[in-house]
Amino acid sequence: MLNESELLKLLREEDVKAGFGMTGGSIPGRKDIIEIIQNLMELLFPCYYRLENVLREPGALLSVTRSSLIRQVYSAFSFAGDPIPQEKAEELADAFLSRLPDVKALLFKDVEALYNGDPAAKCREEILISYPGFLAIMIYRLAHEIYELKIPFLSRIMTEYAHAKTGIDIHAGATIGEYFFIDHGTGTVIGETTVIGNNVKLYQGVTLGAKSFETDPDGNPVKGIKRHPNIGNDVVIYANATILGGDTYIGDGCVIGGNVWLTKSVEAGKIVTYQGKKERKPE
Amino acid sequence: MLNESELLKLLREEDVKAGFGMTGGSIPGRKDIIEIIQNLMELLFPCYYRLENVLREPGALLSVTRSSLIRQVYSAFSFAGDPIPQEKAEELADAFLSRLPDVKALLFKDVEALYNGDPAAKCREEILISYPGFLAIMIYRLAHEIYELKIPFLSRIMTEYAHAKTGIDIHAGATIGEYFFIDHGTGTVIGETTVIGNNVKLYQGVTLGAKSFETDPDGNPVKGIKRHPNIGNDVVIYANATILGGDTYIGDGCVIGGNVWLTKSVEAGKIVTYQGKKERKPE
Amino acid sequence: MLNESELLKLLREEDVKAGFGMTGGSIPGRKDIIEIIQNLMELLFPCYYRLENVLREPGALLSVTRSSLIRQVYSAFSFAGDPIPQEKAEELADAFLSRLPDVKALLFKDVEALYNGDPAAKCREEILISYPGFLAIMIYRLAHEIYELKIPFLSRIMTEYAHAKTGIDIHAGATIGEYFFIDHGTGTVIGETTVIGNNVKLYQGVTLGAKSFETDPDGNPVKGIKRHPNIGNDVVIYANATILGGDTYIGDGCVIGGNVWLTKSVEAGKIVTYQGKKERKPE
Amino acid sequence: MLNESELLKLLREEDVKAGFGMTGGSIPGRKDIIEIIQNLMELLFPCYYRLENVLREPGALLSVTRSSLIRQVYSAFSFAGDPIPQEKAEELADAFLSRLPDVKALLFKDVEALYNGDPAAKCREEILISYPGFLAIMIYRLAHEIYELKIPFLSRIMTEYAHAKTGIDIHAGATIGEYFFIDHGTGTVIGETTVIGNNVKLYQGVTLGAKSFETDPDGNPVKGIKRHPNIGNDVVIYANATILGGDTYIGDGCVIGGNVWLTKSVEAGKIVTYQGKKERKPE
Amino acid sequence: MLNESELLKLLREEDVKAGFGMTGGSIPGRKDIIEIIQNLMELLFPCYYRLENVLREPGALLSVTRSSLIRQVYSAFSFAGDPIPQEKAEELADAFLSRLPDVKALLFKDVEALYNGDPAAKCREEILISYPGFLAIMIYRLAHEIYELKIPFLSRIMTEYAHAKTGIDIHAGATIGEYFFIDHGTGTVIGETTVIGNNVKLYQGVTLGAKSFETDPDGNPVKGIKRHPNIGNDVVIYANATILGGDTYIGDGCVIGGNVWLTKSVEAGKIVTYQGKKERKPE
Amino acid sequence: MLNESELLKLLREEDVKAGFGMTGGSIPGRKDIIEIIQNLMELLFPCYYRLENVLREPGALLSVTRSSLIRQVYSAFSFAGDPIPQEKAEELADAFLSRLPDVKALLFKDVEALYNGDPAAKCREEILISYPGFLAIMIYRLAHEIYELKIPFLSRIMTEYAHAKTGIDIHAGATIGEYFFIDHGTGTVIGETTVIGNNVKLYQGVTLGAKSFETDPDGNPVKGIKRHPNIGNDVVIYANATILGGDTYIGDGCVIGGNVWLTKSVEAGKIVTYQGKKERKPE
Repeated sequence: MLNESELLKLLREEDVKAGFGMTGGSIPGRKDIIEIIQNLMELLFPCYYRLENVLREPGALLSVTRSSLIRQVYSAFSFAGDPIPQEKAEELADAFLSRLPDVKALLFKDVEALYNGDPAAKCREEILISYPGFLAIMIYRLAHEIYELKIPFLSRIMTEYAHAKTGIDIHAGATIGEYFFIDHGTGTVIGETTVIGNNVKLYQGVTLGAKSFETDPDGNPVKGIKRHPNIGNDVVIYANATILGGDTYIGDGCVIGGNVWLTKSVEAGKIVTYQGKKERKPE
Repeated sequence: MLNESELLKLLREEDVKAGFGMTGGSIPGRKDIIEIIQNLMELLFPCYYRLENVLREPGALLSVTRSSLIRQVYSAFSFAGDPIPQEKAEELADAFLSRLPDVKALLFKDVEALYNGDPAAKCREEILISYPGFLAIMIYRLAHEIYELKIPFLSRIMTEYAHAKTGIDIHAGATIGEYFFIDHGTGTVIGETTVIGNNVKLYQGVTLGAKSFETDPDGNPVKGIKRHPNIGNDVVIYANATILGGDTYIGDGCVIGGNVWLTKSVEAGKIVTYQGKKERKPE
Repeated sequence: MLNESELLKLLREEDVKAGFGMTGGSIPGRKDIIEIIQNLMELLFPCYYRLENVLREPGALLSVTRSSLIRQVYSAFSFAGDPIPQEKAEELADAFLSRLPDVKALLFKDVEALYNGDPAAKCREEILISYPGFLAIMIYRLAHEIYELKIPFLSRIMTEYAHAKTGIDIHAGATIGEYFFIDHGTGTVIGETTVIGNNVKLYQGVTLGAKSFETDPDGNPVKGIKRHPNIGNDVVIYANATILGGDTYIGDGCVIGGNVWLTKSVEAGKIVTYQGKKERKPE
Repeated sequence: MLNESELLKLLREEDVKAGFGMTGGSIPGRKDIIEIIQNLMELLFPCYYRLENVLREPGALLSVTRSSLIRQVYSAFSFAGDPIPQEKAEELADAFLSRLPDVKALLFKDVEALYNGDPAAKCREEILISYPGFLAIMIYRLAHEIYELKIPFLSRIMTEYAHAKTGIDIHAGATIGEYFFIDHGTGTVIGETTVIGNNVKLYQGVTLGAKSFETDPDGNPVKGIKRHPNIGNDVVIYANATILGGDTYIGDGCVIGGNVWLTKSVEAGKIVTYQGKKERKPE
Repeated sequence: MLNESELLKLLREEDVKAGFGMTGGSIPGRKDIIEIIQNLMELLFPCYYRLENVLREPGALLSVTRSSLIRQVYSAFSFAGDPIPQEKAEELADAFLSRLPDVKALLFKDVEALYNGDPAAKCREEILISYPGFLAIMIYRLAHEIYELKIPFLSRIMTEYAHAKTGIDIHAGATIGEYFFIDHGTGTVIGETTVIGNNVKLYQGVTLGAKSFETDPDGNPVKGIKRHPNIGNDVVIYANATILGGDTYIGDGCVIGGNVWLTKSVEAGKIVTYQGKKERKPE
Repeated sequence: MLNESELLKLLREEDVKAGFGMTGGSIPGRKDIIEIIQNLMELLFPCYYRLENVLREPGALLSVTRSSLIRQVYSAFSFAGDPIPQEKAEELADAFLSRLPDVKALLFKDVEALYNGDPAAKCREEILISYPGFLAIMIYRLAHEIYELKIPFLSRIMTEYAHAKTGIDIHAGATIGEYFFIDHGTGTVIGETTVIGNNVKLYQGVTLGAKSFETDPDGNPVKGIKRHPNIGNDVVIYANATILGGDTYIGDGCVIGGNVWLTKSVEAGKIVTYQGKKERKPE
């Protein structure tokens, strides 16, 4: 028969060995942060992202969301060891909420891009109802505003929620222009320091990642430097292409074919395609 | 302090600018459509996909599912601006439900294909309990019947549910033969006009997509033409291969290696493999 | 009007044709097994993976989890046609639970690897809160202990839960060393007989899979042989690389570039990169 | 070991013996009817009876409630063996909903009566938040409108919901004037053919019931005749008083003391008190 | 600022002072026992007491209920300090379940009594859907079978569930004949050693209770003796009547008026009514 | 067809006529206050009143409960038009929480009284698991501490929760001594200014209420004066007795029989019984 209390003791000892404390209540609440995102989506597009069977009253929804966001902002700074006063948390939450109309305007442009770019889309409403690419972009655009306000932890939890829902992993720190398009999207990764222009189209499995990491003399990664590529305007990148490196620039109007691996820049207007296949008969 | 009502007004104004109305109740209900899919799965394989802790009574489950489906069919046509009478909605729902035994027969063949194709499968039941590839195929085969009845919106919401659950994105319009096999499957994409024969095996990350889109004189995509490849019988396509284009035909018995990019047809019986790697020492 | 009872009869007949029985209650309960995994995660890292809004009492949680696990172990053997006595089920459950402190120690090493390997990670706690790579590794390490005890079905349901949540599909049978690192991870697949050394880094879309299956004279796959590669220590494998085959060995210190397709071994210390692209102007 | 299928067979046989069929789906849905009541309460007093954490949008809530009510009206008539066309069900639901503003005006008068009659009430809002007497009156007033439209079953399920929540059992058929007051209320019963004037106050445990039932020559109760008392205006009835009979009239301005048993009429302006106690020392 | 750990310590110390241990997991689970009752009600009358929106499959429901009951029987004896082997728990559960058809036959007789006794009942089905009196009798009849098997704790939790739902408190130990009728029922109490004949009608607020308790030389109540009245056949007891004492016998055919207090026996065929009121003008 | 927006407009107009505003978010949250009560019950007796299947960690539970209580205290004062600073709300919440150990000590005495007073109680634990009388007393004792701190609204919502669960309505303002006993309890009412001594026993349906209300010159009730009786030590009051009036004193050691109506004081040691019945033969 199992000695339960001994087992629990052993488990706790591992925390001590690893230098992890029991910090309980003050950890930012994943569940609450995801609820904030869901509320924001209903505020932006009430008929398409309602959480309950019946739409919630926008005024009350905004007010509840604001309160919850203030609490999460406050506790995120506490958890990061950098506490702020309640007033500062309110100020940051309000600065974020004031950006919502602009975010919504941007998102309507993304809807337009998806509608024009996907022949399978029968109407614009279908995109709001069912496109994972749009869901990922919407959550990224919201999380990006949080990131810009330098609030710790929250934006990451938001984009990981989108990642889990769609398989699309856009870091909230990335900079992405207007009329952005991701179709299918599973496996797409966009790194923290990526910069993307206007009218860019990405398909599933595209990585805009880091080439290699600079390490400091102790072998630790140097944090906070430019590690991911720049993508110009009007670029199309097909499925499973991998583009790496902080000094890799893909010029305006380029087309990058599927399954291509790129760690060097490409001039504007070029087409890069994969050529590495061999066809033969079975032996 | 945030001016909440001003903010809500600004948000609503964006809808007007973008030409989006507040259409509320009549939008097809994602939640209800997903429940229909879950009910259908329990009707097909009650022990393996029960939604509650205890199996539900099949007669009652069928009757509830039929009512809900009729409502969704009715409201999908309304939302599409093409309303139909209640009787027509019932007729379409019944036409769909009458197809269930044939769909089930097809699915047992898919189970067989997965069992024979995956050495890790210990028994056929394991496939029903835990294989995401089977889940995606089952939902596709149900959604395809909806698509064939030309009911708007519903099939897309169904396959996007499968996409979110499995990372496998099969458009309900695709035509797929018997004994279909997808293993692992994350990132696999099968486009709307794809045609796949019998005994085909796909692995994770395979794209059967569109090469480029024809645009009309105004630059809008021409909708409704053949854009995705045809795959013959007995074809195997390994991980991360990308095959594009409406006139790309992969002949019977071909093997397409992983990470290959293909936009041209391949004759029957050929093997296509990737050759583009270079091995070197670190500098 | 649909003949509902006729339809239900037809559906049941398909089970008979396919040789499937109505085995009802005895099928291992997906919902319960997923709850066991969630409870184990809360036992290991209570502040980071709590299921309720408030932490649950560890002693009571352990005791409830143990009871539920015993039931699932018992019913898994029954369903596999290989029933065991209640005492044996308790013994196996306790053997598993006794391994938790060692699993926790291993997981802290994985946290370390993720922190050191990802410049975007601001602190170690962030990894526990939000990294899908860590979630997948944790569930794999738990499921692997179940697999090692030769309990049928359970480990597969556990890893498929991780697969659905993260897009990362690690078979519980794989052998994986210390300080394992997966970033982003969507589409990563690690097969049943894979062996991975210490300090290995994988990115999204990497497949460590099987090359081709041996079949017995009847054309059925031979189950239970080595089918997946060995990866040495200190290896890095970039996005969308595909490495296949039971006799494919990647030596210590290798770097495998993104989008590479490999079915042959690579000597220690080599770098393999993709070279198959062509750049041109649009016609 | 229990023979489960034999047991189930025996249970079903009891239905046959008792002449009860398996009528499944068509029985009016208790859960749905209770949800209709909850929605109506939120429509009347949104801030006080919201079902979700956030208020729901009134327009959408009304529209959902109307649809659900139409379905329940339709199925109630079917179950009663007296089917009506869909249009008639819509007409009845709309007739009911059009009465809501008048019901609301009546309810504000009841709030006034409770506020004036209970010295413990600190403000009118407290009555809406927490008085079971008000809850019971509100549900009665809604159910009474349903009863007046001669829709079967629904009003009974509504008032039994109030009964379960508050211990107050008001039959929907009763006729109750303005400014009605029930305090505490547990155990209060008001029968189907009771008529109550304006400004009446009842306390807990008051019964306005039937004296004895007329039976037809077969000994069955004669249904549909006046069986319960009339209460005039400005009457007060204290705790646990029992007043019975269809020809028992309590005149305007009477006060009926607690624990009194009355089966005869009382003239206007009289006070009836209990006199039956004896005080003694313990033996 | 509150010292939380000091407060928790003080709370735990009160347990020690009062001699209460922290017995955690082994306490009979209220939630599980209530679920057993709900499952039993659905097994008896599936269309009227289904717990989910759709009926559950009777075979699976019985099997799940049996397992849960076995666990609760087992843990109830453990908690009572009188552990039994697993086999004995199974035997008791099966003995109980085998009684269900007889209980169902009895309940159909109670439905008949309610239909015949209440002129407001429009049909027999209405009684199953909405009468709290029937709900309380059904749960009493089930709990009584448990009580007869001398299983500790469980029957009390069952009847308290009925008490909370209906305000009717029938002790599972009471003996009640056929064709039992309770109308409205709020406040009705029937004590443990009460014996009730056939065709008895009770209204709301009726108490069949204990007169006074015999105490042992230490002043503690003597447990396990006859303390509550016997009620003959064909007796009617009106609202708020209180009948007390273990040697109080109400003979066949008696009618006990409302608000009467009785601690002495009444011969068969007598009518007892309240006479204690005085009518006067207000001063 | 219903004019929905017209109907909504009419409903809103009734608010204006009645002088009720749309105050939305600031109304004390019934759901949250009930959750606070449930958390407090789990803090006091974790094994008996756990809300989840598994006990919650006491430290975390206390901390969550404290935060929620602070918010409710704060918003209750705001809603009452008497706002307090955040610090004051914290102070009041902590004052309340510090009283928990004393409340727990009192409650153990109540358990003792119930165990000694009810021969049907098999052990003390059964009282915590299943006695509604204890539940009502526990919630009263908690709410009374809130009432004593002069926090508006909250205590009323707490005791109405107990009322709905048990049918026992104890106003939080009542003063109740040690070793208090209520059995069955449905319909028991204890008014705001009641004072009860030690070792008092009440049964179901007992009212300790107000005789008549003093009104000011405008006919409004005078609020805040003594309106309910005083009950001495060692008093027993049987079922359905009604005792009214602020100057009605029941002396130490009295026994009040069931169904008695009392509006005058009773000297210590007296027994008051009901004598108002008449026995006769049926005509």
